[in-house]
Amino acid sequence: MMYIGVDLGGTGIKAGVVSEHGRILSKGSIPTKVERGYGPIIADIAKLCEKVVGDAGLALSDIAAIGVGVPGICNPKTGVIPFCTNLGWHEVPFVSELQSYIQLPVHVDNDATVAGFAESIAGVSAGSSASVFLTLGTGVGGAIIIGGRPYSGAHGVGSEIGHMILAMDGEMCSCGNRGCFERYASATAIIREGRRAVEKHPESAIMKRCGGNPERINAKTIIDCAKEGDETAKAVFAYYVKGLAHGIVSIINILDPEVIVLGGGVSMAGDFLLSAVREEVAKHVFYKTMPYARIELAQLGADAGIIGAALLGK
Amino acid sequence: MMYIGVDLGGTGIKAGVVSEHGRILSKGSIPTKVERGYGPIIADIAKLCEKVVGDAGLALSDIAAIGVGVPGICNPKTGVIPFCTNLGWHEVPFVSELQSYIQLPVHVDNDATVAGFAESIAGVSAGSSASVFLTLGTGVGGAIIIGGRPYSGAHGVGSEIGHMILAMDGEMCSCGNRGCFERYASATAIIREGRRAVEKHPESAIMKRCGGNPERINAKTIIDCAKEGDETAKAVFAYYVKGLAHGIVSIINILDPEVIVLGGGVSMAGDFLLSAVREEVAKHVFYKTMPYARIELAQLGADAGIIGAALLGK
Repeated sequence: MMYIGVDLGGTGIKAGVVSEHGRILSKGSIPTKVERGYGPIIADIAKLCEKVVGDAGLALSDIAAIGVGVPGICNPKTGVIPFCTNLGWHEVPFVSELQSYIQLPVHVDNDATVAGFAESIAGVSAGSSASVFLTLGTGVGGAIIIGGRPYSGAHGVGSEIGHMILAMDGEMCSCGNRGCFERYASATAIIREGRRAVEKHPESAIMKRCGGNPERINAKTIIDCAKEGDETAKAVFAYYVKGLAHGIVSIINILDPEVIVLGGGVSMAGDFLLSAVREEVAKHVFYKTMPYARIELAQLGADAGIIGAALLGK
Repeated sequence: MMYIGVDLGGTGIKAGVVSEHGRILSKGSIPTKVERGYGPIIADIAKLCEKVVGDAGLALSDIAAIGVGVPGICNPKTGVIPFCTNLGWHEVPFVSELQSYIQLPVHVDNDATVAGFAESIAGVSAGSSASVFLTLGTGVGGAIIIGGRPYSGAHGVGSEIGHMILAMDGEMCSCGNRGCFERYASATAIIREGRRAVEKHPESAIMKRCGGNPERINAKTIIDCAKEGDETAKAVFAYYVKGLAHGIVSIINILDPEVIVLGGGVSMAGDFLLSAVREEVAKHVFYKTMPYARIELAQLGADAGIIGAALLGK
């Protein structure tokens, strides 16, 4: 059997037909146009699903299930999406609405969870008994895969690793708490610290690269300057690595996964990031002489959402 | 079938015969006398096992397995205990040594893990799909129970929740890191903050209760004074509750368990602690309108170690 995977984002919707081993047979995309509200969006998701099935030379009867990754959470018992901030959705009866167009089982999970699940089946953490996936983007998304299945907790709201508290009384977070992991390990954190740093060090190469306008600093600005040896950028990057590594140490101490996978925009820094994080984590693990999680970069890139969503139905 | 549970501590060793539902049929105890080294201790454990089986009117042939809770970790693949700080053990071939006396399957896990497992079968978290247990003692021990089994991670070193980092750059921990959860949520944390507080507030009732000697402050001193309305003790207790609640919020955001169980010495503060923690957690949960973990006090007390260890073999 084949599976349909849908990656529902605030800007675009991607869908594809995926084999049980995580190979994409066909894929397509449409703009989300969130202002339409959920009715027309879900109708378009159904049409996109039918299109990619046709493109793969298949019929809906060849499909076992549809899986959808959403930038929010879904109640697995009711099929209702209680919150989806990026889409402005609140209490959306997603599963029943999609099933009014296509009569197939529909599985919904968080977008970070499905990306981590994809890596655990067809990516860098394939075959591991337990893995944790972190998307280092605007925020920090998390996925926990245990025994080959995404673990989302008793009420479906687990694996919000970005909101693990790393620094009690620390940086204010959008969730209302202070010191959440994502305030230290997201691209947003690098940008914030970069802007703070150039106030004190206007001579930094960061300022030249952003054309003298700190508003134009992004994570890549800092990482590129750090790679080139700029002291201010190196200090910002080191502070970022410290926060990320301390969060990873907490994950190791709590969950002891076999692999921790780094994805999302900041992971594009590649080995420069990976070697720094591995070195910092090694200094802080609890059982210094015991084996602990391998830390790796994600492999599947932009396709992870489609693959992982599809395989929810497996 | 019946099971033998052994609770191996730095001071004493307890053992009992336990039914599959967690009922203790017989139990006994001996002093550990750690200075003897592991050989004579394991020989005595074997004798204690035989004694409690006889006391229950049973023979070893009625026993399915022996489970042992240790104040450390055990490699489940090799049966070797790599570290047991309280016992001064290092690379002890525990399972093969015990099996040289009694030819039964032997299961070993961390003492906090087996206590949490016991609560999930015969205590306050019985029947839950996922629970987390915290022992609030000299340190903070943790157990994660998922799908009715203890979760100890890919290398057997998980659920060290006391060493989740709650305050990056915070209080120095015995593990070498700073800001570990147990530096804020253990009895040791209350004592430290109590001693700091009486330096600034020698007029506090804490000073009277400890006979003017801050070295005699313990967790109960602070909690009793807080219950009686002493402002200094109330502030120390509030800071403790804040740290404990922030750690619990992280656990909820990562693991989303159905129940979080509080055990260990500090949990003897009962409803005074429980209502304060519940109130503080409610302020900081991520999804304010979604259900989240019940927070409860442990029920099994000192028997949890025997019961949980026994049921490892179930």
